[in-house]
This record gives sequence, C-alpha cells and structure tokens, in this order.
Amino acid sequence: MSSKLEVCLTPALIPLYDVEDYIVVVIDIFRATTSICYGIENGAEAIIPVSQVEECSAYLEKGGDYLLAAERNGEVVEGFDFGNSPFSYTKEKVAGKTIVLTTTNGTHALHLSRNAKKIVIGAFINLTAICNWLKQQNQNILLVCSGWKNNFNLEDTLFAGAVVEQLKDSDFVVDDPAIAANDLYQLAKDDLDKYLKKTSHSERLKKLGIEADIAFCLKVDLTTAIPVLAGEKLVKLK
Amino acid sequence: MSSKLEVCLTPALIPLYDVEDYIVVVIDIFRATTSICYGIENGAEAIIPVSQVEECSAYLEKGGDYLLAAERNGEVVEGFDFGNSPFSYTKEKVAGKTIVLTTTNGTHALHLSRNAKKIVIGAFINLTAICNWLKQQNQNILLVCSGWKNNFNLEDTLFAGAVVEQLKDSDFVVDDPAIAANDLYQLAKDDLDKYLKKTSHSERLKKLGIEADIAFCLKVDLTTAIPVLAGEKLVKLK
Repeated sequence: MSSKLEVCLTPALIPLYDVEDYIVVVIDIFRATTSICYGIENGAEAIIPVSQVEECSAYLEKGGDYLLAAERNGEVVEGFDFGNSPFSYTKEKVAGKTIVLTTTNGTHALHLSRNAKKIVIGAFINLTAICNWLKQQNQNILLVCSGWKNNFNLEDTLFAGAVVEQLKDSDFVVDDPAIAANDLYQLAKDDLDKYLKKTSHSERLKKLGIEADIAFCLKVDLTTAIPVLAGEKLVKLK
Repeated sequence: MSSKLEVCLTPALIPLYDVEDYIVVVIDIFRATTSICYGIENGAEAIIPVSQVEECSAYLEKGGDYLLAAERNGEVVEGFDFGNSPFSYTKEKVAGKTIVLTTTNGTHALHLSRNAKKIVIGAFINLTAICNWLKQQNQNILLVCSGWKNNFNLEDTLFAGAVVEQLKDSDFVVDDPAIAANDLYQLAKDDLDKYLKKTSHSERLKKLGIEADIAFCLKVDLTTAIPVLAGEKLVKLK
C-alpha cells in the first residue's frame, strides 16, 4: 500500500492527525528551523527548543555550558548570547555547544507532534537532503507548518510544497493541503523572495530589519545535516 | 482605515478570529451552501441547517410544514423528503417551504461563526451577487471555508479565492490565506472541474455518483439571492 504524504497547514490542525502513524517534518522557515538546520550542520552538539524566554533563562541556573538564544521584537534579549538569526549559528560560535533556542511557533508545533514516529526539522537550506532521506523511509509523512500564531503562513506552506515537489513522483498518496502547497510552490519557485514580498508578514519582517536573514532562509540546499528530535533535544540524524 | 479581507481555511481556525468584528461568509461548495443558495433563490421561505440526521428528524415531531433533507453515504435517508443534491431545491419543490437540511461541515462552520456581525452564505452560483453586496458593506470580511472534517479542502478555498479576485481591487487588507486562495483560484479558474479532479475528495464524490451535482456546484452566477442567518434560519437577504 502507498504511504501518505500530507501537509498540516498550522499547528492548530495537528490534533486532526494520528501523528503516531507518521514521520513528522517540522517547518518554521522564518527563522527557527533554518537556524536549527544551520546550527546542527555547523557542529552544534544539540539544540533545545523552548517557547518562552523565561524557560530559556532557566537553563542559566542549571549550570552546564549552554548558549542561550532569545529575541523580543527582533532584538537579542539582554543577558542572552544571541537571537534567532541564522548568522549567529556559525561553526565558530556553535561547534560542540548546546544551544537553547526560544521559538514560539516552532516549539508549539514540536510539542503537538511529540508522539510521531520520528520528528525531523526541515528548511530550504536542507531541502534535498531531507527529501532524499524521506524517500528511503517507506513511512507516512506529515509536513507540519508552524505558521504564525496558530494560523496559516505562506513561507512554511511553500517549503511543504517544495518537499511535495521532490517526493511526488515516488508512490505517495497526497491530500488536498499537499496539492495546494505544491501548486503554490510552482507559482513561487522561480523567485521565492519576490513571491513572499506580497505578504503582510514580509512587511512585518522588514520592519524588524532582518531582510538579510530572510534572504538566507530562502537559500536552497546549503546544508545536508538533518536535525532529529531525541528526547527534548534536536541532534544530528546519524 | 482599510477593511480586512481574510480567509479562514477550516472551521478549526475560527477561534483565532474575533468574529464579532467581521461579516462572515460561510462556504461549503460540495454541496450544502450551493443547495442553500439555490433553494433560497427558488423561493424557499427558510432553510434550517442541522448537523445530525436525528436533529432533522426532531422537526417531524414539531409538526409544522417542514421539508426534511438528510443523506447518509449519498442516499436519501428513509422517511426523508430528499437529500443534499441541489437538484432537489427547485422552485416546484421548495417555493414557500421551510427546509431542514442536514450538513455536518457547514453547520459546524455556522455554529462557530455565530457571533459575527452578520453571516451570509456563498457558493459559485451566487458569486458575483455576494461580491457586489460585500463591496458595499465597508466591513471586515471573513470567508470561512467549511472544509472536510475540520481540515482544509480545495473547493471551498477556490471559492474564497474567487471572492478575493472580485474584491481585491477595492481597498481591503488581505492576509496570507487570502493570497494563497486567490493564487490557487488563478490556477484553477479556467476549468474548476478539471483542477479539482486531482483531489482525493473528487474520487470520493465520484463513488457517491454525484458528478452531476458537482458540475452544478461549479457553475458561476446562476442566482442572485443571498441567504443570511436570522436566528437559527437562513432566509433571503432583503
């Protein structure tokens, strides 16, 4: 029987799926999952996603050698090592370290997917690597868009559509959201940045002064590492 | 200030909106809102949407002159007047009557939208009529897709995209789901039926033997009546 390839458009819809029957790919393109993929590629020992700055701070008290990443309104929170920009996750900064990363939408999606067979992290920068791995699994696949405050966003949906594009010639049964995501990706793929410019989210991000981050988050196949959830930590899939 | 034009992709996402700030358009193209628009156009006094066959039956005991519409697996339930096919909602059958219509997804969407400023019913058959009316309201508009079992479906999203198409030159602020719906509509508009053929839902509907219904549900601008919710009843907007 064919495996399923389905797209969950927002974390609010995760309860509609029996996630224990799927490998889940969590997607939060701007910028959490891009930074996670880049950090793991660059030799971070582990990345621990948390949803609140306070949870992040708590790791200070645990002792241990954590790098703490937290932002509010696009600025690094005082007392923290860095924010959510993927440019913070270079080899020099993260190799061998464990990073605690504050990300609301991504952590929410991870938490709601926790009973999945396996949870891996996807972003444009590891697109083909994750697709090649997914093709070999012979499992149902659920692409979970972290979205924006539990609602739909275009950038995560476009990435889901890019994955569907690479997998659709394999023998998967796709659902309506996967068809829609793939069709939107067809429209956008020649210039993702231009396509996303028409969204309100894009305006919001521009105001945060993170256009260089955005450009980085839309680069394809810069990396090959696949982060996988092991307990509460994201580590490199062996 | 510009009004908002937003698309709620499934009833599960309605709680993310302050519906009291919006006129809500409920959409359930296959087949509830199409049948409702056709019935109201053809002189039905009122249509009462319910979610369970049992609720529908209860109207038998209330006495009064109700027509009861209920289906299970594409067949009219025994003891009922007719099912959900729009072809049942002709002038000869419905003029002057009150119809109790069983529809799971549509009733769910209506119920969750009940605090909206106003709730109207849209379908391809009244597309331009409802768009013209919406343009005159100077209100925030939320297009609510009834979807399939609380999840996204393509046909309702395409209709939302068709509404966005007619309204987008007016001064509305649109959200990401509205942009996506409109882009999908652009891809599909030249042949909605062909576009929808690639969905799994389409296979399901074909098995029910309701292809003639589907073709009817995709006809544009057959009618001009706009059903509006008044209490528990849908009646013609004056």
